[in-house]
Amino acid sequence: MNYPKDLENLINYYQKLPGIGEKSAERLALATLEMNSDEVTKFSESLLDAKNNLMRCSICGALTDKEICDICSNGSRNHNIICVVEDYKSIFSFEKTGTFNGTYHVLNGLISPMDDIGPEDIRISSLSSRIEKLDNPELILALKPTIEGEATTLYIKKILENKKVTISRLSYGIPIGAEIDYLDNVTLEKALEDRKKISE
Amino acid sequence: MNYPKDLENLINYYQKLPGIGEKSAERLALATLEMNSDEVTKFSESLLDAKNNLMRCSICGALTDKEICDICSNGSRNHNIICVVEDYKSIFSFEKTGTFNGTYHVLNGLISPMDDIGPEDIRISSLSSRIEKLDNPELILALKPTIEGEATTLYIKKILENKKVTISRLSYGIPIGAEIDYLDNVTLEKALEDRKKISE
Repeated sequence: MNYPKDLENLINYYQKLPGIGEKSAERLALATLEMNSDEVTKFSESLLDAKNNLMRCSICGALTDKEICDICSNGSRNHNIICVVEDYKSIFSFEKTGTFNGTYHVLNGLISPMDDIGPEDIRISSLSSRIEKLDNPELILALKPTIEGEATTLYIKKILENKKVTISRLSYGIPIGAEIDYLDNVTLEKALEDRKKISE
Repeated sequence: MNYPKDLENLINYYQKLPGIGEKSAERLALATLEMNSDEVTKFSESLLDAKNNLMRCSICGALTDKEICDICSNGSRNHNIICVVEDYKSIFSFEKTGTFNGTYHVLNGLISPMDDIGPEDIRISSLSSRIEKLDNPELILALKPTIEGEATTLYIKKILENKKVTISRLSYGIPIGAEIDYLDNVTLEKALEDRKKISE
């Protein structure tokens, strides 16, 4: 099938997006043609603006349109609590809960000897420097429960050994709403191990 | 959740596309940020190019980047056979089969008294004019089997009554690969009614 060239181009670009196959890309491209010109122009500009204006916060590494992000520059947040995440996208998830009032630190990856990623390849030294400036800080490690996540957690724990800092990690257990019958063994084992007393 | 403004804008535009919800739009926007600048620039341009350069063929109404589309200007196609479709998108589906060598005519809608759409609101008069210029033409009505499709089929049949033109419609029946047990009554009734003799 020969699409008109401009349509084919647009379909190809939509197809570069994750989860968009050939059929979906065609549907999106044809839907774009049915938007009015003004909207398409603004859509086109919003792509460039997002790509060109967004950067990483120089303190925590979050996605922002300023040198220092809204969270790091917010005086009403608790700057003594730092939630350590692998990726800036996790910050959106935490912020959606609306219950965390501390700050973040994006590692931009996890330690992974298999992939030749060492502590110096991720943002660990900037985390250390942040902690040194704080008085009795609390660190919450929100890394995924994989070998890489565990390795990174252990490494951070080790380098902060002699510093006055409270370190915790997210709890492991049964996700809310899950059917216990369908849970994997490891999660169930963790949930049992980390059981929480509810009466004396 | 407060996204940076430019990210929020981009998410909003992705969300205007069909089938893209809030979560998918966020995923697409973040994926866009991970494309390289050059690609995002080209993606942005391809949106404008598609919107600005594509038009409708002045003969058949297909989507094209020229005054007359590639099919209408193709000398090796049979211009005596016209396949009548509701929408220009149907042409892509027919062309993908690779077996139809005639031309098309896009109606841009179907007759629908309920929605106040009469014969003069769709491209029927241009269809008549095309047919008048042809010698013994064949018309294939490829309209959907709904009240509107049937009404349009009947109307076209009626206005061409006194003209020398062969008119057919697509066959109705069991789609290839379907389970007979799960077919709807009407389709099964049509398939029975239109049964095809396979031996004398």
